[in-house]
Amino acid sequence: MKTDFKHSTTLRVRYGETDQMGYSYYGNYAQYFEVGRVEALRELGMSYKSLEDRGVMLPVSHFEVNYKAPALYDDALEITTHVSELKGPRLIFYYEITVNERLIATASTTLVFVAKETMRPIAPPEDFIQLLENHAK
Amino acid sequence: MKTDFKHSTTLRVRYGETDQMGYSYYGNYAQYFEVGRVEALRELGMSYKSLEDRGVMLPVSHFEVNYKAPALYDDALEITTHVSELKGPRLIFYYEITVNERLIATASTTLVFVAKETMRPIAPPEDFIQLLENHAK
Amino acid sequence: MKTDFKHSTTLRVRYGETDQMGYSYYGNYAQYFEVGRVEALRELGMSYKSLEDRGVMLPVSHFEVNYKAPALYDDALEITTHVSELKGPRLIFYYEITVNERLIATASTTLVFVAKETMRPIAPPEDFIQLLENHAK
Amino acid sequence: MKTDFKHSTTLRVRYGETDQMGYSYYGNYAQYFEVGRVEALRELGMSYKSLEDRGVMLPVSHFEVNYKAPALYDDALEITTHVSELKGPRLIFYYEITVNERLIATASTTLVFVAKETMRPIAPPEDFIQLLENHAK
Repeated sequence: MKTDFKHSTTLRVRYGETDQMGYSYYGNYAQYFEVGRVEALRELGMSYKSLEDRGVMLPVSHFEVNYKAPALYDDALEITTHVSELKGPRLIFYYEITVNERLIATASTTLVFVAKETMRPIAPPEDFIQLLENHAK
Repeated sequence: MKTDFKHSTTLRVRYGETDQMGYSYYGNYAQYFEVGRVEALRELGMSYKSLEDRGVMLPVSHFEVNYKAPALYDDALEITTHVSELKGPRLIFYYEITVNERLIATASTTLVFVAKETMRPIAPPEDFIQLLENHAK
Repeated sequence: MKTDFKHSTTLRVRYGETDQMGYSYYGNYAQYFEVGRVEALRELGMSYKSLEDRGVMLPVSHFEVNYKAPALYDDALEITTHVSELKGPRLIFYYEITVNERLIATASTTLVFVAKETMRPIAPPEDFIQLLENHAK
Repeated sequence: MKTDFKHSTTLRVRYGETDQMGYSYYGNYAQYFEVGRVEALRELGMSYKSLEDRGVMLPVSHFEVNYKAPALYDDALEITTHVSELKGPRLIFYYEITVNERLIATASTTLVFVAKETMRPIAPPEDFIQLLENHAK
């Protein structure tokens, strides 16, 4: 199932995130996208925390990012997250980061629903599927 | 130019790198691969530090990783870095992480030679090209 | 000069900040307090970024923290920063983190005004002293 | 019980650990000291991992660091850890970081033995006490 659900959140680049080039280090973006998808899921009606409390985890199986322009200290990152597709146990997100409408990065992640007990892939919870269906395209 | 230059280095997963799943957080891998390529370049005969001292920087333009199995606290990661290809100002690396021969992740990064002054792409330094040519395939 | 200037800001614990105890890793707090003091300085009327743009840096010379109770994933941290005292080139901050009024940590940092060029201690900028004087006690 | 057990380990400053001052960010030191004490405990004969596997955890209750000189990218940090004192459920460590015999930082941490199940302080395991007694002073 594909969806058109998108959500934006804002985050400032921390001093500790810069490197000696003066850029936000390329490794920080994984955290930025995590914040983006956590806030997107919260807006959708399903906090990631509540999923874990029910024994469901969502580890990342694939991560890909294109760095277009550097993000600098104190920049206000606008992170737009698109909850793009549910495909069996896999949930695919697309992301875009801009600063004052300048494109900083695009990215995608694939997450997999797994049971905490067994660490094996499982079907997504029914109520999560229903939340997504409200935004199916 | 394609090369067959590969180098392996070992790194332990730090406690602060685990998350509440008990996995090394997916965002840490960018640092693991950075350590891999820095040590590969050092072995090749060109420290990344010496490049920066000469006004050359190597920001990452593309990063892609496939997570195959979790890395756990105190695991000794074997990071194998393949300095794969030089293509104009772009330098392409492939990586593999194993723990006791179990595959943990594969990845690739594209870095771009830029001048510190202008932050614009430049040709790689001549001596770097020569080092690579020793391993051309 | 001692001041009574205090400022509060809120920050959520990120997933990548948890460790396998399920706590926010003790090393993250340095970033939390950095966010606290950056926002406190901004509220005071002096962004840290503008200081650096004028060639002034504020490295940390002393950092001390008491961990009272764990901060957990997705907790909304209330960080209260007290810009406590200016003593020659040194600026002293006190911090308190609470979650729903439960005390999580107290801390202090000492920062030193240094010139970017020389990396040596300097007197604080005049306009910064004046901003503090508005809150002297 | 006080001990004279000390252990040294070496760690390189990673690129991602630098900030735009060109220093290793002050928040990274918590990880450096963690590596120092984990390796000290391993040398003593007790891996931290084996403690957790037995249901014992060691969260940090106090952390204090004095930054004497900056650590720079690619610096080889010599971290000396002194397992200083066991005081009820509390274990106190002192640390010193040098680079080429130049003092970079001194620090101390207090950790508390807690049961994983209850998250409450407990007496240290008997075999750990015996390991320490071999180095009592």
